[in-house]
Amino acid sequence: MFKANQFYKQLNEQYLFSTIATKVRSFQNSNPNVKIISLGIGDVTLPVCNAVVKAMQECALTIGTKNGFVGYGPEQGHLFLREAIRLHDYCNRGIELSADEIFISDGAKSDIANMTDLISRDCIVGITNPVYPVYLDTNMMDGRRLVFLPCKAENYFNPVIPRDGDIDVIYLCSPNNPTGTAMTKEVLAEWVNYARKNGSLILFDAAYEAYVTEPNVPRSIYEVPGAKECAIEFRSFSKTAGFTGLRCGYTIVPLELKDSKGLNINKMWKRRQSTKFNGASYIVQRGAEALYTQSGREQVRENIAYYQHNADNLLKGLKQVGITAYGGVNSPYIWLQTPDKIDSWQFFDILLNECAIVSTPGVGFGTCGEGFMRLTSFNTHENTSEAILRINRLFNK
Amino acid sequence: MFKANQFYKQLNEQYLFSTIATKVRSFQNSNPNVKIISLGIGDVTLPVCNAVVKAMQECALTIGTKNGFVGYGPEQGHLFLREAIRLHDYCNRGIELSADEIFISDGAKSDIANMTDLISRDCIVGITNPVYPVYLDTNMMDGRRLVFLPCKAENYFNPVIPRDGDIDVIYLCSPNNPTGTAMTKEVLAEWVNYARKNGSLILFDAAYEAYVTEPNVPRSIYEVPGAKECAIEFRSFSKTAGFTGLRCGYTIVPLELKDSKGLNINKMWKRRQSTKFNGASYIVQRGAEALYTQSGREQVRENIAYYQHNADNLLKGLKQVGITAYGGVNSPYIWLQTPDKIDSWQFFDILLNECAIVSTPGVGFGTCGEGFMRLTSFNTHENTSEAILRINRLFNK
Repeated sequence: MFKANQFYKQLNEQYLFSTIATKVRSFQNSNPNVKIISLGIGDVTLPVCNAVVKAMQECALTIGTKNGFVGYGPEQGHLFLREAIRLHDYCNRGIELSADEIFISDGAKSDIANMTDLISRDCIVGITNPVYPVYLDTNMMDGRRLVFLPCKAENYFNPVIPRDGDIDVIYLCSPNNPTGTAMTKEVLAEWVNYARKNGSLILFDAAYEAYVTEPNVPRSIYEVPGAKECAIEFRSFSKTAGFTGLRCGYTIVPLELKDSKGLNINKMWKRRQSTKFNGASYIVQRGAEALYTQSGREQVRENIAYYQHNADNLLKGLKQVGITAYGGVNSPYIWLQTPDKIDSWQFFDILLNECAIVSTPGVGFGTCGEGFMRLTSFNTHENTSEAILRINRLFNK
Repeated sequence: MFKANQFYKQLNEQYLFSTIATKVRSFQNSNPNVKIISLGIGDVTLPVCNAVVKAMQECALTIGTKNGFVGYGPEQGHLFLREAIRLHDYCNRGIELSADEIFISDGAKSDIANMTDLISRDCIVGITNPVYPVYLDTNMMDGRRLVFLPCKAENYFNPVIPRDGDIDVIYLCSPNNPTGTAMTKEVLAEWVNYARKNGSLILFDAAYEAYVTEPNVPRSIYEVPGAKECAIEFRSFSKTAGFTGLRCGYTIVPLELKDSKGLNINKMWKRRQSTKFNGASYIVQRGAEALYTQSGREQVRENIAYYQHNADNLLKGLKQVGITAYGGVNSPYIWLQTPDKIDSWQFFDILLNECAIVSTPGVGFGTCGEGFMRLTSFNTHENTSEAILRINRLFNK
């Protein structure tokens, strides 16, 4: 008899965003003429840049011709894109990688989730609290034992290094979703030391690296010596180049990375991808390649600067009304502390009902997110400024 | 300490296609002026049709504009594509489905492989021999117990129904890769009966359904009454519309499908996809949508007819020289029996060295493939005719 994976029964229902949607709908129905501004949105809003549009149009035309057709590509991704990544994202920043260590995919979420295929089910997994839910849910689906690592303001929302032997695998996200804070090189080095000493694996989610502005914040974990022996890095074109709908990301699995039994993880990931995946879409890989041309790089920089401007203004606006806020400097996310210690959902309701602003309750990312809210900088300049005005009016009533 | 998934150690190395490539390279080096014709190729060769090119060009332009940008889509796929599939691929052929039962992905291979996430690791899995290697490898990666079901000429390469209780999950592929044969409605009904009686799950790979020409061969397992209680169906745009490089497929998970403990599989797959996947690329979904316009449907029909013409000619050509061959009628694949019972690799060498033809040794798909070869109809008319001439000359020497 067919028995399904029973671990799915232990998953929490995904209520967060549906609850938000229900509240927003109900507010809009009661206030049909009010313009709601979303600072809860996790998706980008600026269009795909011209260099990508042109490259994809050309690609569509080419694959429609007898000689230009391209079918199955390498499961690991086309070399033209892996070479561009190697050169621009790593070599030019002082990190030597081989193209064999770069795996193109349909997005960082897929890779982060699918990487659990390579982890033995008896490993103990460290999960920060608050957390991007994918790390948590995918490990619950496999029934692994979890250790939660609280991230608190007094430690700049970095998890405290656990005792030796306590965890086998750890997910680190820097710049962080949802807290918007980033690990300094020193903090990251402590984790690399822990992992090397304990034979642990670090799964490093660098999806927001393009937003880093401070010099002591690494964009790649491989800026830390020794990280290639213990860390896998995930990156994405989603939040940098607006690829949330196009789907493309990449993962670095160093050639020297081994498990405690000596298994080569790069070889295993290659085997996993060749067996369970057929490569990212060719037209999308051609689009991503265009991001590394001069005009592509300029357009990406402009997009990020646009969102950073919003983050700046949000931080200033919140400070003006006396709200404590974190993040926003190396990240598109701002993590604000609710005033008067009211809980996340209560402040969500105030922002919605008094300001017509949609936010994301911090408690939705874990118990340690209680009393916090995540705001994003992905709306327009105009809407973000308007939201700041509304918050200002609320606090000066 | 990080321990990797130790089941990977039991996987066979993927030697088949690399061994072929090495032999072909060596032959070409010794015979630089000889034109090699590949009938081993599993990839299509005709360009992407004009309707798709136009739709993707338009989409590229649109997502480059402020109002046309589309970011994260539904993980299950955009409704415009699910509705087109529902209407044209199912309703119009007498099968009622809800759009909630259709899941768009980046290809059938990904879905077939990822579906193992939902299967308890203590299930016993039936694998045909010969087999498309993905079914085998993905279950070995999870350490499941396997039961091999030989597929022999005397049973038209259908596996024999096992004893009650022998298997919990069975992979069926019709039209079959590699044998090119297809299950009749009666044969498929016997499997549906077995599955219902035993509470087994059928994973039905219908990636080649567009090649079906005979009226008693179902294109969908849901043509068999009761199949919605026991079967998941996988389909692909790869071999029908040349999407091998673009990546798009879809999977049907019926709403009424439950495991032996009462878990709803549709709900589980939705949860799996929302957690581990972020939807297929928007531009590719727009391209796939165009396949359902009148011009798109005509262009797909023409492409398939082109390959079917090759299959016809190959079958005739083989018959003329007295070779027994199967498949090719409802499939782009032909499964030929080697003359004089010589083994697969020996016949591979003869075809390569005497005819400069590349084929695929049947034994590469499993021990029961020994003494057989897979030929494909994905080359051009000209090359396929030339290959037939060469085989004719070989046998009339």
